[in-house]
Amino acid sequence: MVYLTIMRMSQTLCPTLKESPREAEIISHQLLLRAGFIKKTGSGLYTYLPMGLKVLRNIEKIIREEMDKSGALEVQLPAITPAEMWKASGRWEKYGKELLRIEDRHGNEFCYGPTFEEPITNLIDSAVQSYKQLPINLYQITSKFRDEIRPRFGLMRGREFMMKDAYSFHTTDESLNETYKLMEETYIKILKRCGLRFSIVEADNGAIGGSGSKEFMILADTGEDSIVRCTDCGYTANTETANVYYHTEKEINQENNVEKEYIETPGIKTIQDLSNFLNIPKKDIVKTLVYDIDETTIILLLRGDKEINEIKVKNHFKAETLVPSNDETVYRITGVKPGSVGPVNLKEACLIYADKSIQNIQTLIVGANKEDHHLKIPLHEKDFEIKEWIDIVNADTGDICDTCKKGTYEKQRGIEVGHIFKLGTTYTEKMNVKIQNEKGENKNIIMGCYGIGVSRIVAASIEQNHDHKGIIWPHALSPYRGVILISSMKDNTLIEAGEALYETLKNKDIDILLDDRSVSLGTKFKDAELIGIPTQIVIGKNYLTEGTYEVVKRNEGNKSVLNATEIIEYFTN
Amino acid sequence: MVYLTIMRMSQTLCPTLKESPREAEIISHQLLLRAGFIKKTGSGLYTYLPMGLKVLRNIEKIIREEMDKSGALEVQLPAITPAEMWKASGRWEKYGKELLRIEDRHGNEFCYGPTFEEPITNLIDSAVQSYKQLPINLYQITSKFRDEIRPRFGLMRGREFMMKDAYSFHTTDESLNETYKLMEETYIKILKRCGLRFSIVEADNGAIGGSGSKEFMILADTGEDSIVRCTDCGYTANTETANVYYHTEKEINQENNVEKEYIETPGIKTIQDLSNFLNIPKKDIVKTLVYDIDETTIILLLRGDKEINEIKVKNHFKAETLVPSNDETVYRITGVKPGSVGPVNLKEACLIYADKSIQNIQTLIVGANKEDHHLKIPLHEKDFEIKEWIDIVNADTGDICDTCKKGTYEKQRGIEVGHIFKLGTTYTEKMNVKIQNEKGENKNIIMGCYGIGVSRIVAASIEQNHDHKGIIWPHALSPYRGVILISSMKDNTLIEAGEALYETLKNKDIDILLDDRSVSLGTKFKDAELIGIPTQIVIGKNYLTEGTYEVVKRNEGNKSVLNATEIIEYFTN
Repeated sequence: MVYLTIMRMSQTLCPTLKESPREAEIISHQLLLRAGFIKKTGSGLYTYLPMGLKVLRNIEKIIREEMDKSGALEVQLPAITPAEMWKASGRWEKYGKELLRIEDRHGNEFCYGPTFEEPITNLIDSAVQSYKQLPINLYQITSKFRDEIRPRFGLMRGREFMMKDAYSFHTTDESLNETYKLMEETYIKILKRCGLRFSIVEADNGAIGGSGSKEFMILADTGEDSIVRCTDCGYTANTETANVYYHTEKEINQENNVEKEYIETPGIKTIQDLSNFLNIPKKDIVKTLVYDIDETTIILLLRGDKEINEIKVKNHFKAETLVPSNDETVYRITGVKPGSVGPVNLKEACLIYADKSIQNIQTLIVGANKEDHHLKIPLHEKDFEIKEWIDIVNADTGDICDTCKKGTYEKQRGIEVGHIFKLGTTYTEKMNVKIQNEKGENKNIIMGCYGIGVSRIVAASIEQNHDHKGIIWPHALSPYRGVILISSMKDNTLIEAGEALYETLKNKDIDILLDDRSVSLGTKFKDAELIGIPTQIVIGKNYLTEGTYEVVKRNEGNKSVLNATEIIEYFTN
Repeated sequence: MVYLTIMRMSQTLCPTLKESPREAEIISHQLLLRAGFIKKTGSGLYTYLPMGLKVLRNIEKIIREEMDKSGALEVQLPAITPAEMWKASGRWEKYGKELLRIEDRHGNEFCYGPTFEEPITNLIDSAVQSYKQLPINLYQITSKFRDEIRPRFGLMRGREFMMKDAYSFHTTDESLNETYKLMEETYIKILKRCGLRFSIVEADNGAIGGSGSKEFMILADTGEDSIVRCTDCGYTANTETANVYYHTEKEINQENNVEKEYIETPGIKTIQDLSNFLNIPKKDIVKTLVYDIDETTIILLLRGDKEINEIKVKNHFKAETLVPSNDETVYRITGVKPGSVGPVNLKEACLIYADKSIQNIQTLIVGANKEDHHLKIPLHEKDFEIKEWIDIVNADTGDICDTCKKGTYEKQRGIEVGHIFKLGTTYTEKMNVKIQNEKGENKNIIMGCYGIGVSRIVAASIEQNHDHKGIIWPHALSPYRGVILISSMKDNTLIEAGEALYETLKNKDIDILLDDRSVSLGTKFKDAELIGIPTQIVIGKNYLTEGTYEVVKRNEGNKSVLNATEIIEYFTN
């Protein structure tokens, strides 16, 4: 049975706005406010009005059904969780100010869970007695809280937000791998059912720890994440994670007979300025960076058109900390200030690492370690030693895919809405959660975790599907399947026809909205387009002359004229 | 479509316990823990395990459907709400330590909403522009937080709990009255559908303010609330609220020729002791109490068997504060310490008020205001003046109903699970929320509010429905409609028969649990009884000999033998 929710525009609470509120910077935030789906309650805190809540519930329902089908068990943990569990894992101290710490009336410490590894591991410790109960995968669809420093972007990055989080527990890696794969398949089903275009990308595990992870990205030009996708093999990853392949046969061309040459570059400090000054592309210039990595200092060389990826550097060196060296250190090592820094003629020994992208440049333009000078030098010149060729830049359009070594990458923008992790024993070791396995050995339980941002999907769907008139909901997410517009509330024939069609469709369990407000048809159209319900049915002139209805599809904008039987077929098929 | 949740006992997480955990004082808490429905996460903080969550969801679904049918609109406010709104209403200061106050990373103040009058009034102020949009009734089913000083009793009084709260907004009192009535009818439907025995009682508005309220009480001997119900007209109220009728013709019998007499009562300080010493029932003795009420002191007389009801006293005198006077004040007024206090021979003038229950006693036994003495005195004796006859005691079994003035009250115990209030303009005045009405007048919006404790119903249902073996769920709340017990997992015929029946029922969308664990039939029976699913189907000896199933109803305990066709009929009818 479909819920008998209010289906009349005159009776629901949907305060549409003509102008976008000033606070809203991104399109999904603007449209959610303008369409009357949400209202701001406080900084990063939003109230779901009836239409917005219907969208949220549609997403929740799809997630719940697919998680249930996968064999996961739904539970519900309290939002407020005791500090002890977080102290046991070490995150009470490590987690930054995003963790909303709370004291109760007795001075006991708690936090509003931003994620639930600790409380759920604690639960498993007390509720599971035998390895025979494993594997088990527990999920919940509840509010989480992250105290973002500057909450903006509406539902995209609210402080209190709705998330589906799941945690699986295993005695073997094989079992974790199976569930991890099952969750990937489940997430694909969920996002397909939501009607969204997405990519699955290889991702970095980040602060949460563990041994493997993938992100699920809703594709949208306005997305804050960069993704590369191989046009040949389909491998997709964050630009920070994707490895780039370089044809090594080109490695060093000993035949290059360019001669080492100092170039005067007065006042030139940036790659862009140098590129303009010498009239050579940035990709043919080499950027020299000096970094403090843990206790030592290193020099990194990369192509002028590339961005350094500090995560790759840290991962390569298994380093704890990585920060650009200060001017003093740079001067001590190179004898100049940043802007003229290069790998040749160092004042102090320092290991040099080069990004593989440089292998394709046979003649290097580098800083000369001499004020207002750069240096042209063939790659085979042994004036400096490259300790190791490594991959430390963000992948980009045109780079060769390291998986198939054939195709090239294409860059896309996306919004992360899901993340699956192999956590391994990161948490169970710290929290000392063990179970006796089949062989009688007492071992730490192996974990996986799997999150989907439910409220974030609401926003991401809009970033992907909208036009200048408003939202365009995918069918599965739309608050209603269609909206009937009575063109004039002064004509009883039209009112009666609208009411009759509304009753007919409602009796067939079709979730339909009736715009029965005493406003102009123009206003009804504008609101219908803003709200983004997939199908508009106009009861107007065609009805009076021929007894037919004008049907407009929101995503295509094309109109057709249908009779009553055809309309019912349209919605029931 | 029914959710495809896990329906196998071997695969769900339902850690039943043989012993009741020491922390659990009341039966619902003991059984919820023992049956593996919940786990404690922290003080007053519980995790719903799969079975417990199913019960919670069943209740939520009933509430949501009935609220939707009533025309209320579902919304969802953030749990964390800004302090400003609570400061505007004055409750930031007034609300005690139960209000969980929180500071974010910037030092801004918030609270975890214990109720939502302020945020929802704020929402209406910004989202409603015209009186034509009223009346409107908004509801949400979300977690609330009350920082109880000593959270005990499990889900009955958790700190974080699930509540359905609704708030209606009106321009006229008539409109409020209509919605208030509609909500009463809706609550009746909800509790009936839940399969619970309940009473609706007239209640005091308490701290929340306003002009009328009713409580919905689940009847249970273990309930913490006392209710009286008139056996004749059905009027039901809290013992603190119910008025008692006294036949006034008996008021004062001038013919009573008992003579005033001092009685020596050495060492007698309590009504009970006096009753034993004189061998007369407590109801024939008069209790004299001295109270400080606001700035003055008064004397209250009541029957020795009655409890004073301070709320009635405060309401009668429209007083802000009411506390028993200290010994010093009592001594100043009466010349004795508490224990020998009476209304005659006062040392200082003091107004005397008497509970109407005394009108039926013609000869009073009162304290003599003389150490170790009491006084026998006819009611018509004018040694003291009763300023006013008032109603200031808790109603009790046998008292006459003040509504029909015929029937007598019967006392019951109950658990409050719902409360509806006419708030009036209490909040909109303080928060300055007005709307222009039809006549163009700018008036404060009139409010009602309506709450149901969702998680509390889980506990209250158990308090009402259980036996020494475990929970007895009403059909509508049970996590599953039936449980199939395979009597032996060593007999393939029985396993196959169990699986086949399970598949048959599942395919008919009947939510059925299969106990396929490799444990003894005794253990399966014990767990089935503890968990409280309404119907148990045993696949055992009868199946092997006759192909039939033994069906046991949890609430009646009676057994019957059905064949496959009859079992399907049993569940589908």
